[in-house]
Amino acid sequence: NTMKKHILPVTLGLFGLMSGPLLAQDATTAAADAVTYATASDISYILNTLLFLIGGFLVMWMAAGFAMLEAGLVRTKNVSMQCLKNISLFSVAGIMFWLVGYNLMYEGVDGGFMGTPLPKDIPAPGDDSGDYAAASDWFFQMVFCATTASIVSGTMAERIKFWPFIIFTTILTGILYPITGSWEWGAGWLDAKGFSDFAGSTLVHSVGGWAALAGALILGARKGKYAADGRVIPLPGSSMPLATLGTFILWLGWFGFNGASQLAMGTIEDASSISRIFANTNIAAAAGVVTVVILTQILYKRMDISMALNGALAGLVSITAEPLMPNLFQAAFIGAIGGVIVVFVVPLLDKLKIDDVVGAIPVHLIAGIWGTLIVPLTNSDATYGIQLLGVVAIGAFTFIASAAIWYGLKATIGIRVSDAEEAMGLDKVEVGVEAYPEFGQGSARL
Amino acid sequence: NTMKKHILPVTLGLFGLMSGPLLAQDATTAAADAVTYATASDISYILNTLLFLIGGFLVMWMAAGFAMLEAGLVRTKNVSMQCLKNISLFSVAGIMFWLVGYNLMYEGVDGGFMGTPLPKDIPAPGDDSGDYAAASDWFFQMVFCATTASIVSGTMAERIKFWPFIIFTTILTGILYPITGSWEWGAGWLDAKGFSDFAGSTLVHSVGGWAALAGALILGARKGKYAADGRVIPLPGSSMPLATLGTFILWLGWFGFNGASQLAMGTIEDASSISRIFANTNIAAAAGVVTVVILTQILYKRMDISMALNGALAGLVSITAEPLMPNLFQAAFIGAIGGVIVVFVVPLLDKLKIDDVVGAIPVHLIAGIWGTLIVPLTNSDATYGIQLLGVVAIGAFTFIASAAIWYGLKATIGIRVSDAEEAMGLDKVEVGVEAYPEFGQGSARL
Amino acid sequence: NTMKKHILPVTLGLFGLMSGPLLAQDATTAAADAVTYATASDISYILNTLLFLIGGFLVMWMAAGFAMLEAGLVRTKNVSMQCLKNISLFSVAGIMFWLVGYNLMYEGVDGGFMGTPLPKDIPAPGDDSGDYAAASDWFFQMVFCATTASIVSGTMAERIKFWPFIIFTTILTGILYPITGSWEWGAGWLDAKGFSDFAGSTLVHSVGGWAALAGALILGARKGKYAADGRVIPLPGSSMPLATLGTFILWLGWFGFNGASQLAMGTIEDASSISRIFANTNIAAAAGVVTVVILTQILYKRMDISMALNGALAGLVSITAEPLMPNLFQAAFIGAIGGVIVVFVVPLLDKLKIDDVVGAIPVHLIAGIWGTLIVPLTNSDATYGIQLLGVVAIGAFTFIASAAIWYGLKATIGIRVSDAEEAMGLDKVEVGVEAYPEFGQGSARL
Repeated sequence: NTMKKHILPVTLGLFGLMSGPLLAQDATTAAADAVTYATASDISYILNTLLFLIGGFLVMWMAAGFAMLEAGLVRTKNVSMQCLKNISLFSVAGIMFWLVGYNLMYEGVDGGFMGTPLPKDIPAPGDDSGDYAAASDWFFQMVFCATTASIVSGTMAERIKFWPFIIFTTILTGILYPITGSWEWGAGWLDAKGFSDFAGSTLVHSVGGWAALAGALILGARKGKYAADGRVIPLPGSSMPLATLGTFILWLGWFGFNGASQLAMGTIEDASSISRIFANTNIAAAAGVVTVVILTQILYKRMDISMALNGALAGLVSITAEPLMPNLFQAAFIGAIGGVIVVFVVPLLDKLKIDDVVGAIPVHLIAGIWGTLIVPLTNSDATYGIQLLGVVAIGAFTFIASAAIWYGLKATIGIRVSDAEEAMGLDKVEVGVEAYPEFGQGSARL
Repeated sequence: NTMKKHILPVTLGLFGLMSGPLLAQDATTAAADAVTYATASDISYILNTLLFLIGGFLVMWMAAGFAMLEAGLVRTKNVSMQCLKNISLFSVAGIMFWLVGYNLMYEGVDGGFMGTPLPKDIPAPGDDSGDYAAASDWFFQMVFCATTASIVSGTMAERIKFWPFIIFTTILTGILYPITGSWEWGAGWLDAKGFSDFAGSTLVHSVGGWAALAGALILGARKGKYAADGRVIPLPGSSMPLATLGTFILWLGWFGFNGASQLAMGTIEDASSISRIFANTNIAAAAGVVTVVILTQILYKRMDISMALNGALAGLVSITAEPLMPNLFQAAFIGAIGGVIVVFVVPLLDKLKIDDVVGAIPVHLIAGIWGTLIVPLTNSDATYGIQLLGVVAIGAFTFIASAAIWYGLKATIGIRVSDAEEAMGLDKVEVGVEAYPEFGQGSARL
Repeated sequence: NTMKKHILPVTLGLFGLMSGPLLAQDATTAAADAVTYATASDISYILNTLLFLIGGFLVMWMAAGFAMLEAGLVRTKNVSMQCLKNISLFSVAGIMFWLVGYNLMYEGVDGGFMGTPLPKDIPAPGDDSGDYAAASDWFFQMVFCATTASIVSGTMAERIKFWPFIIFTTILTGILYPITGSWEWGAGWLDAKGFSDFAGSTLVHSVGGWAALAGALILGARKGKYAADGRVIPLPGSSMPLATLGTFILWLGWFGFNGASQLAMGTIEDASSISRIFANTNIAAAAGVVTVVILTQILYKRMDISMALNGALAGLVSITAEPLMPNLFQAAFIGAIGGVIVVFVVPLLDKLKIDDVVGAIPVHLIAGIWGTLIVPLTNSDATYGIQLLGVVAIGAFTFIASAAIWYGLKATIGIRVSDAEEAMGLDKVEVGVEAYPEFGQGSARL
């Protein structure tokens, strides 16, 4: 039951075990002036903070990864809109997680169901206390919140209006994500029960996935995706290299996502743990890719680049709930199953006529559930029952709350563009700037 | 009056306050052999250097951000050229800031108007002294210089010839930027007066903006941009996802730009300050985006992705002069005004027929002025009068010197391609390689 | 004769020289409880590990750089395939360097010709010993191995089948690269002789280049590249901005590649060395670009963006064998010759009808040889004779072994698509997803 918030006192443990230098009453004061020694707690503070900042900027970079992945997987006529949604959601997440979210997630949860929804205050540098800089912690937690919102934008692309999406994002990042987050990382009731989700297979990825699934069901599929006779019509994305770039960005950012979730770098054991997390994270992603490539070759006699990319992401999501305890064989196994999930759940969703433009539901929701449920395999502090409880509780809350919000938005301002607008593309309707004005048959001069 | 160059003696302050371990004359030597302790100054040196290196590679990455932003905002027929200009200017900046710029900016300025234009020498590792590695400092300062040149290339895109642009870049990065930089970060006369520009709203962004403005005025607008009847003809950029990618890269890089401008990471207070800077930087950018999106919706009933991207950048530029002292509300306010500047200055420049291809003048020059002037709101060491003095002095010097150079280039080798060449696109004229040879109506086979 | 593997004992040197605090028998124990001091070895361990992780994620990011460079330099019809190859090879490299490669390269080489091909085991965090975390070292070395494979994929693009390429990658990353790597970085026979290759001009770049050259010779040129009358037909790449992005990514990643090859960050001297490496690396790349731009202007009266990009890469490869010892003038010279190599070797290969799609052979093989041979200019521990021996031995082994594997693959499963398939493009034949389905004349609806 890792808690994201507090740095474990063990940070100073290793140092504490050593016999520190003693103050000798009869020592020469002059000698002391010549050389001062660093205290373990100061250095831990600095290194912990540095870990949050490096991890934080790597996860921030994932916002660009989602933007590129989604820009590459939607059609030309909706690319500008997808870019706009991604930079907007990252901005909204930053503001909401400051104004409401952070303290709702972390302040005074005390085994309960939520904290206190007040703006996060950053102390003046001289007044900062604790085991790391408060602002570095805020920054690191904020980019996780933003990741959750990024997941939603992909699934619902190409037909949802801008403003209802932004309103949902505001609520998701300010209220929904922080509430379920507080249950575990805020030391709430799930944490007290022993639920374990190291870096957020459930708290981040599945939460985003549940919100996306609720939205996709209420929003409906894109026009032309499912023919009257039941056939699935491929609506291929506009740019595979951008989707590939996005995936590599996400893979890179994931080292910060999982690695810095160790939350401390002041001891040998922490540094060793972070390194092990890097290795496991990479092996899981690699296993996801290799699994998808082999399976698609066997099943379809060809490969599919977008499936291979999603294989990497599913491997990454799968290992996120427990990237520390597995050995490399276990990490490879966990990631490989993520790849299997992609290969089988993508067509399954199409059978169910759930139109998930970028495959976020298999990658983030289903692989997130898988990763969370398998934690007890390698972490003896976790139990399958409690893991299932966490998956169900967080899933039920997020799905129901999201569905209620989507319904509310649908009933009031509407969430979907008209059929004519959808055919024309969101770029012309709402953005007014085409993504590729000089080429692209799906697009044309305004 | 922060000086970029010297690490403040406070670096060792916190350690100094603690009672260091004393040398006991009667202690057991054997015990001392068993465990050696780290000295605070060694650790500070390493952490300060690490901060420069991490900050430096993040700001170096901004060169790619500018390249992608500009490649996305110019038309297809000029994209290869824009890429070539960006990699060339980064290279030229690196060489000039080594051969001339660094010492011109930092060596022996002593309250004056410039330093000594000699090549920067990197000491052998064993000989390095001071509070950080000399080469890490050079690297960090060099990428700031390169940023300044990147700003110019965007404004003047699509009609300026390659070589005059490179000659200007050579002078800007070797001489102009270092001279005004020396006034403040080199501990020159403006620093002595109490001017404050933490990470370079004026010294980097406005200097680039002034040079770009002088160039744009002398170069003239692109053919077809302003109709005879005064209408403004949109010349939409070739790729919004690349422009979006560029903006995300810049946003990421800005954490290094502002954060590492703290210049030290060896104390708790430094680590706390860097973290606070990260938070303020992110909130200012987010506020810039949200402001632009809301304003464009109100004013134009639609959003504009390129304006939203520039909103992020303007928020970032605005907070750059003082990213440490504001609280998050103040940071949001400062960034939001940056967004307002974008919405109102972009059309204003068009009214004045100043053709700024990527919006660098509102983003870097005007938001840079705003950010510099508002410093006294949160930093009581700064005064509005001295801030204005700095803005005017640096602006006047850069604008006049740049204009003189642009005029000189225009009168000698010429700075603009012919109308026929401009219509054909710079890629065919000077680069010989089209950006997208297989598609793009603006482009065609050579 | 730097060895990549072991952290030099000098890591603790500087600390050791200082008189550590002594344990006073009569000191007050209470005082000791109040303040604990950090031990130098703990801090070194953490900082060394951090260096590997930061350097490692920067080099991992180079995988995206190669993907974008190659996606930009192949034609539209082969872009999806190039993306698939790049994410697949990075995955395969990660798995093979875990299952076989790492220990084959580093375990028990002892002056010999190879180590022990067993899976790398990551110790539990509490059991990690040594001067850095074992997993951080594995991660850092793994991304170098992956880089080698990335080099091959570019040269052989647009006509090689997916599966033979993957099989070759499996052998290259699991066996070939680790064997020659063991000779030097694994403390094998070449290291014993005094060969010097700091960050891998030969061990990484030339090895990739030799494997690519062998493959290109056996695979043959693309159809239509060399006309019957001997003319060279340009087959321009699909996207110059993606190629530019790829180059900037590689440039950024190279700071990790060369900088973190210092292998330690626990002392002032290490931090200073890493910084000097950053500066030299940047200057070499910049000199490569400037040299290419000037030379192409003189020789061809125009510039070539893809040559300029390769100039940066050749400068980077050239400095990689010895990025620490040169001063900045020497670094500029070494990088500039890299640029010269690009300008003259690219057309030379075309004369020899060796079809190297992205220019990897001049950039990685020839500039890698140059960089390795010039080491003695600045590093007095190296000799020209031994450097030549290393270049020849590693080249001969890699070229012959690669050729044998390529021949074996050709004779069995075949390595090349049919002429009709090559004309159609690999995306349709093997990937089933076009890169840009809505535009691009080279591509069309499936």
